[in-house]
Amino acid sequence: MKSPQAEKAAKDKNTVKAIVEVASSIEKRIEAHAKPEVTFPIRSLGNVHYDPKKGWFEIGKGKSIRTLTVNTAKTFAQTLKMMALSKELVETSDFATKRDAYYQSKNWGEAKFDDQSESDTVMDDIEAMFSVSGVSREQLRYIPDEHGGAVAGELIIYDQDLETGKTEKIDCTKFGSGAYTIPSLVEHLTFETKARFILCIETGGMFQRLQSHKFWQKSHCILVSMAGVPTRATRRFVRRLSDQCDLPVYAFVDCDPYGISNIYRTLKVGSGNAAHINRFFCVPRATFLGVTPQDIEDYKLPTHPLKDVDVKRAKDALKNDPFFKIHKPWAAAMEKLIRMGVRAEQQALARWGLNYVIDTYLPAKLKNTKVFLP
Amino acid sequence: MKSPQAEKAAKDKNTVKAIVEVASSIEKRIEAHAKPEVTFPIRSLGNVHYDPKKGWFEIGKGKSIRTLTVNTAKTFAQTLKMMALSKELVETSDFATKRDAYYQSKNWGEAKFDDQSESDTVMDDIEAMFSVSGVSREQLRYIPDEHGGAVAGELIIYDQDLETGKTEKIDCTKFGSGAYTIPSLVEHLTFETKARFILCIETGGMFQRLQSHKFWQKSHCILVSMAGVPTRATRRFVRRLSDQCDLPVYAFVDCDPYGISNIYRTLKVGSGNAAHINRFFCVPRATFLGVTPQDIEDYKLPTHPLKDVDVKRAKDALKNDPFFKIHKPWAAAMEKLIRMGVRAEQQALARWGLNYVIDTYLPAKLKNTKVFLP
Repeated sequence: MKSPQAEKAAKDKNTVKAIVEVASSIEKRIEAHAKPEVTFPIRSLGNVHYDPKKGWFEIGKGKSIRTLTVNTAKTFAQTLKMMALSKELVETSDFATKRDAYYQSKNWGEAKFDDQSESDTVMDDIEAMFSVSGVSREQLRYIPDEHGGAVAGELIIYDQDLETGKTEKIDCTKFGSGAYTIPSLVEHLTFETKARFILCIETGGMFQRLQSHKFWQKSHCILVSMAGVPTRATRRFVRRLSDQCDLPVYAFVDCDPYGISNIYRTLKVGSGNAAHINRFFCVPRATFLGVTPQDIEDYKLPTHPLKDVDVKRAKDALKNDPFFKIHKPWAAAMEKLIRMGVRAEQQALARWGLNYVIDTYLPAKLKNTKVFLP
Repeated sequence: MKSPQAEKAAKDKNTVKAIVEVASSIEKRIEAHAKPEVTFPIRSLGNVHYDPKKGWFEIGKGKSIRTLTVNTAKTFAQTLKMMALSKELVETSDFATKRDAYYQSKNWGEAKFDDQSESDTVMDDIEAMFSVSGVSREQLRYIPDEHGGAVAGELIIYDQDLETGKTEKIDCTKFGSGAYTIPSLVEHLTFETKARFILCIETGGMFQRLQSHKFWQKSHCILVSMAGVPTRATRRFVRRLSDQCDLPVYAFVDCDPYGISNIYRTLKVGSGNAAHINRFFCVPRATFLGVTPQDIEDYKLPTHPLKDVDVKRAKDALKNDPFFKIHKPWAAAMEKLIRMGVRAEQQALARWGLNYVIDTYLPAKLKNTKVFLP
């Protein structure tokens, strides 16, 4: 296991190298009296590819080139200023949100952003540009404004003091009924664990039940509360933890088209309109523990009727989503759900007792993880 | 300082006593061949009172009585079943979300809830009924489905293992760049701290900056990330911490009508349409550090124009909200903001450097806390 310091230093070196390469190529063109240009991958569904062996929605080879002209002069300058800020952030061990960057630009003279949508676009461009060389927005030190989810269980996290560089050890078994909040930036964290798997949970209520009853102790696992569609930080945290410690990831969400196609699918393969970042954020090893349409029958769960929006979402997924086209068991499960015409919440298991989920459902499921939906 | 065990035992005893009292009075009426009844405070803006000395929007003396009739038989039975479940939860050291309770009711025969809006209404009734005797919904062991905010800084939290009763010690200086996630239920927590104040922060991005740079170490404080309007658990956590450790609470939010009248006002005095619970959830000691309309001028902050919805919200607050009627400095600040016609985000301070907020703004503000808006 690399130390957090070594991990961070290696990544930072790589990031600065990538920034310098782009800047140098621009400088060379200027010196050669050619018009400078920057190259971005095209970000659209038409430029997306899904190979289940690789495990995520991948960006295709489509590229767009921005050449410096009278019309693009300001955006071009802003792109370079944002890259320079990124280099400065890496070198000073600091970070900035999109908003921080927007306000910083007020000191950039003519190149200042007039509104936040302008700086968001340039940020997205830079993210896409550097994703091609394997550098994520977070490695460029631009952090999301939202925090990550909550974590508890058999896990030790090694973090690093930003100012002193001292290693800090965080033991996720020691939070009582509380939990660990995933920070915005997780690139520098390293992990130590004897857990057997990571359990990603949709609702705060279910997470609280499993955490308060220390389910992780009984089953040797790490609990992660996603609180709906997981944030970037949460997805990246789970991905890095899963990769570094070679841990399977099981998703435990509501049985409805939103839980399946938005929460689970996004966790596992990423999303279509952000394909340039999926390689960093998706968790290809994730499989689907439940609640499955079959569980609704097997466990006689109380249900609600599917709403029109649910049915539309499910049919859209079957028709257009490469994930459901490639994974036949998922297409079958989704079709079954549409036929049944109902949905069930993960908390519906409380019908059989508040702790039925801990005493019966999860142990039964975990005995046969091979049958989990892909 | 009471131990978590003693704290919890005392509260639980009080809760069971309150439940038994209501149940006994019903039993007595039945034995006397009178129609049984339950009494609720009326929950509406018309039944709200604000005394700044007390510190929160308080429920008035208006009462409604529900007598058992043919029409109310089912709701009456459901109310009693919910009270019985609450007693069971206290006695087994467990808890339930609103949804858990809904699904549990599927075993209540004729008294089962047909949909979640039914169980939500009964839950709200019970909450209002017991609030009169000083027992909160959380003490009845019905927890919200949402988690609380994130906490970091000079604070030790004592929690208690649900099953073994063993005390667990959580040191909030030891989370690296991460933080402590407030659990859904905070009634049983006890605290130890040498911090001088609690700083409640609106955005995740600003919290992350202050936490990563360990601002709490420099200024001896406890940082709380509210992430917008704080959850019930977050408000209750801050309230109990402030009460128990006699700590002032400073709010640091965006300078716009939403930050002031929704986030800050809700934190400090609670909300109008939930006056029966404000006594548990509001933080009367909170004062407003910034960003103030005056700060926008003093610090030459970049601004955005107020939207129509902002102006409407501000004018509504000035006209109808007892909080702004009673606190003249607030009315003046809000009028100034409307005149200026602009709003500023807390991250706008980044205009002067990413860490200007840490090095200059907060230290300057904290030198003179007496001038904070009430």
